[in-house]
Amino acid sequence: MEKRNIPKDFPVVILAAGEGSRLRKGGNHLPKPLVPLLGLTLLERALLTWKTAGVRRFYVVVGWEGKRVAAHAQELAKRHGLDLEVVENPRWQEGNGTSVLAVKDRTPAPFFVSMVDHVFEPSLVEGFVQQVKDKKSTIIAVDPRVTQVFDLADATKVRLEEDRVVDIGKEILPYHAVDMGLFFCGPEIFQALEKAKKEGDGSLTGGVKKLAAQGKMCAVKLEEGFWTDVDTPEGLEYAQKGLLTCVARSQDEGWISRHFNRHLSRWITARLASTSITPNLVTLLAFALAVAAGCLFALGKLGTTILAALLVQAASVVDGCDGELARIKFMVTPWGAWWDTLLDRYADSAIVLGITWEYSHGHGEAWPWIFGLLSFLAFAMASYAKKEHALRFGHPLPRDAGDKLTRRDLRLFAISVGGLLNRPFPTMVALAAMSHLWIGWMLWRKRKG
Amino acid sequence: MEKRNIPKDFPVVILAAGEGSRLRKGGNHLPKPLVPLLGLTLLERALLTWKTAGVRRFYVVVGWEGKRVAAHAQELAKRHGLDLEVVENPRWQEGNGTSVLAVKDRTPAPFFVSMVDHVFEPSLVEGFVQQVKDKKSTIIAVDPRVTQVFDLADATKVRLEEDRVVDIGKEILPYHAVDMGLFFCGPEIFQALEKAKKEGDGSLTGGVKKLAAQGKMCAVKLEEGFWTDVDTPEGLEYAQKGLLTCVARSQDEGWISRHFNRHLSRWITARLASTSITPNLVTLLAFALAVAAGCLFALGKLGTTILAALLVQAASVVDGCDGELARIKFMVTPWGAWWDTLLDRYADSAIVLGITWEYSHGHGEAWPWIFGLLSFLAFAMASYAKKEHALRFGHPLPRDAGDKLTRRDLRLFAISVGGLLNRPFPTMVALAAMSHLWIGWMLWRKRKG
Repeated sequence: MEKRNIPKDFPVVILAAGEGSRLRKGGNHLPKPLVPLLGLTLLERALLTWKTAGVRRFYVVVGWEGKRVAAHAQELAKRHGLDLEVVENPRWQEGNGTSVLAVKDRTPAPFFVSMVDHVFEPSLVEGFVQQVKDKKSTIIAVDPRVTQVFDLADATKVRLEEDRVVDIGKEILPYHAVDMGLFFCGPEIFQALEKAKKEGDGSLTGGVKKLAAQGKMCAVKLEEGFWTDVDTPEGLEYAQKGLLTCVARSQDEGWISRHFNRHLSRWITARLASTSITPNLVTLLAFALAVAAGCLFALGKLGTTILAALLVQAASVVDGCDGELARIKFMVTPWGAWWDTLLDRYADSAIVLGITWEYSHGHGEAWPWIFGLLSFLAFAMASYAKKEHALRFGHPLPRDAGDKLTRRDLRLFAISVGGLLNRPFPTMVALAAMSHLWIGWMLWRKRKG
Repeated sequence: MEKRNIPKDFPVVILAAGEGSRLRKGGNHLPKPLVPLLGLTLLERALLTWKTAGVRRFYVVVGWEGKRVAAHAQELAKRHGLDLEVVENPRWQEGNGTSVLAVKDRTPAPFFVSMVDHVFEPSLVEGFVQQVKDKKSTIIAVDPRVTQVFDLADATKVRLEEDRVVDIGKEILPYHAVDMGLFFCGPEIFQALEKAKKEGDGSLTGGVKKLAAQGKMCAVKLEEGFWTDVDTPEGLEYAQKGLLTCVARSQDEGWISRHFNRHLSRWITARLASTSITPNLVTLLAFALAVAAGCLFALGKLGTTILAALLVQAASVVDGCDGELARIKFMVTPWGAWWDTLLDRYADSAIVLGITWEYSHGHGEAWPWIFGLLSFLAFAMASYAKKEHALRFGHPLPRDAGDKLTRRDLRLFAISVGGLLNRPFPTMVALAAMSHLWIGWMLWRKRKG
């Protein structure tokens, strides 16, 4: 028998039965679960988000256009190897509470419940699954950052006493947080839903209200990470922007990357997401741009040098897209990360080779090659020294200015600027000298550690 | 209060009271604990071995030349920051059991007991500390590899029934294992020792015999790792050889390193151990040899090329000594490992630079520099690709022939041979091509992972 004592062993019930009429007003003719967002349908994104959080069984409740949604769900189950069951809810028009009631004979409580039209940063759902661990009652995830909710007027509000829900509804006052459309339901939910329905409220909120009145409804506050519900074309756009910001965010990032590259790469990633171009192909494209830049540098005309400089910066921007695309489409693999980091080193060497070739050739001298080789050494070592430090000491080097100055984003940006000024070689050598000095300084500073 | 429930929280009692007359017959005038072995006295090695195993309190029992040994122990405690107490045993001539009895009023049992004249590979003592965890009785470490004991005739043998000692002594028959001079003693040891002493046997073995007769003596078999006791000048030599073999042994090693370099590096390490030369200085020396080789290659005369080739191989051999020296003198640090791996990359680039300079200069052409840069790229990437793979996948690449062929030991050996044949450049380029192909092949093979 399957072990049942950790939350991710519980299944998730995805409510995908509603009509989503407001979203269709935007000229959209698809049922809501099939609406595409950054290359994945809302249903696919919901399933993969929960899969990432470790959940292994899925129930998808369908209603409006049930056949079509069911077929899509089955196809997704096959494509992603999911243990998935489709549940039809003929009473879907009576409220989304009936969709939860529809699974009553299929799976014992507890289970998670999630709305197909709510989009979450995966870490947020992971956090919910973690926090639910020790709780016994039915739980709702709530967001206390009410001012950041996209359409607050339309949101379901929650009034809390400590971690207990005392009231829920769109119109209640005062309220402390907003319903995120993310639940962990104990067996008591069925009775509560039936009771609410008898009194004329077929919604899940109605059932939650009943449990709240009995003091049986807990709340878990999730205060970090992006989420939104998608009811309108504007909401869809907001979701897209939010998800792109998440995947382009990184603690460990250089200045140029954060303040310049990411704005462009995010825009490109959004375009790439709806194509079938894979992250690994984007990695190859970034490499090809760098090789092209190296070749153009080698030609040594002013025009080709300027073009090369622009390509170097383009390569740097595109180098950010592969990771973003992989994260946004749940396509992150160890191989992809490995491939990316190896090609980065090859790309650097192509640029160094082109710049050095031109300078040596133009001056009819061999000595620039010594600097070329030492430059490549510097760029390779800047990365190598950091990774080796993490490996040997068990913790990374401090993320200080020296670290930022020796990162690839700044290096490529500086070479690009140097290229635009028709001075790529001196720029490269200066960057290399800085990297070597930084490595020496790090070795010296750390020698007692 | 200190937690007492894990074995390494127990102290170790180091017996250093004996005369060691047989060792002194070799012209040695030092008390046994002060006899040097590979740069450390026997007492220092014993203390550092137990410190490495995680033990944090030390009692050193002194007898013969007690003042001198005590002074040395105090000096070592200061140098290595040890919580150490010297215990005088005026009755040391009555047997080493009296030395254990001497700590009776100093520390409550249980504690570890170790002989100063027994030399252990540190992992062996660590293993003993680990295995003692769940045991309640007094425990002796025994080695079932009886045929591998240095002086079996003089060894103390142990007869076992399961993990229980039923008899112990130099002359017993049959026996299953040999006493390693490594004990974990419960409070019952004191009574047993006193009883044995009353009957005329003041040795620790006498006490163990008493406990064995009562069925209160357990044995832990340690079947891996080097140890020996040092009673004679021949034993000292055997210990030196054994320890050197341990530190020069590695699971993760290239062919040339294992079958050629290690034999030389071990010999050098033995000489270096008794000097004050540090491992980090040896790392610098290996680097200097490589830089010298690079310079000599650049000169391009047959004589300098051959000398350079020899220096390359010398650098490769010396590159093995730093780690050996660090391990044998308990001087391993993360910084040392970091310093070593960074200087290796710089050393490689010096060799590539020298070889390429000469070839380009000799032919009056610039194109060899492209190959030079790609060669350095290959050598850096061979190491980088392996480490990145481990980082991304959480496990290393297979240690297959491709791995061995792209290791530094083989690379430097091949360049050395190529240099002796006055063909360093083609050799280097061939090695580089092989490394690039291997990286490409690895990426291809792993692309589905």
